[in-house]
Amino acid sequence: MRTEGKHIIMDASGCAPELLNDLDYLRTLLVDAARRANATVLNVAFHHFTPQGVSGVVVISESHLSIHTWPEFGYAALDFYTCGDIDPKVACEYVAKELKATYVKTTEIARGEVSEEGKYSHKTLSVKEKVYGEELSLLP
Amino acid sequence: MRTEGKHIIMDASGCAPELLNDLDYLRTLLVDAARRANATVLNVAFHHFTPQGVSGVVVISESHLSIHTWPEFGYAALDFYTCGDIDPKVACEYVAKELKATYVKTTEIARGEVSEEGKYSHKTLSVKEKVYGEELSLLP
Repeated sequence: MRTEGKHIIMDASGCAPELLNDLDYLRTLLVDAARRANATVLNVAFHHFTPQGVSGVVVISESHLSIHTWPEFGYAALDFYTCGDIDPKVACEYVAKELKATYVKTTEIARGEVSEEGKYSHKTLSVKEKVYGEELSLLP
Repeated sequence: MRTEGKHIIMDASGCAPELLNDLDYLRTLLVDAARRANATVLNVAFHHFTPQGVSGVVVISESHLSIHTWPEFGYAALDFYTCGDIDPKVACEYVAKELKATYVKTTEIARGEVSEEGKYSHKTLSVKEKVYGEELSLLP
């Protein structure tokens, strides 16, 4: 597996609270998202909090997807990190749409790039926000 | 649980290859790192690749820690995401030291900050590199 990867950090607002509190739904959603991005699912670990909220991770052969939810605020914090030729944007957009997010902020980070001296590093590629389908780049 | 969290993205170079290929060692290391940061471990999911490399996630009540390793390159890609009063830096520095990393790049991101309009978002707080214990800020 190549070291180069793409990592999308996504904070999603205005999501449907009942979906954010449904562990089975979220596990299926993230596994589906991984498969839509042509990733191979290896392992899942989800947890439901009392009184509400879910944390979950899907380990894929190309890295991982994760979600943490606050149903009381309609807020979900997500990460989509994939290596090789997998494009995490597909998974990202699918999950935001399914959760009925009204505002999404994403930062895309290139990971695992190596310098001539053999130092592995990462850098920010883009910072974007999307309001009801309207996309705006926040980087100059 | 508060929505505000800190997420440290870490790429570590020059790590000991035999450690990066040892699933049991890495699982114990990440669980220890979480506990040193006073986080509560809920669930773990680790996978060993053929011929080499490990992916693993520790779900904590305050979010998650993850690791993906390339022993053949001495490279590990890590994430430490914690909410509430937990400081991920403790876990981060412990893991880098234990893996015998010689160069580490970290980006610290504040997550789950809410605007007056109720939009949840994230922003980069710092970008740093460390070479053999010498720390350098890469942000102006």
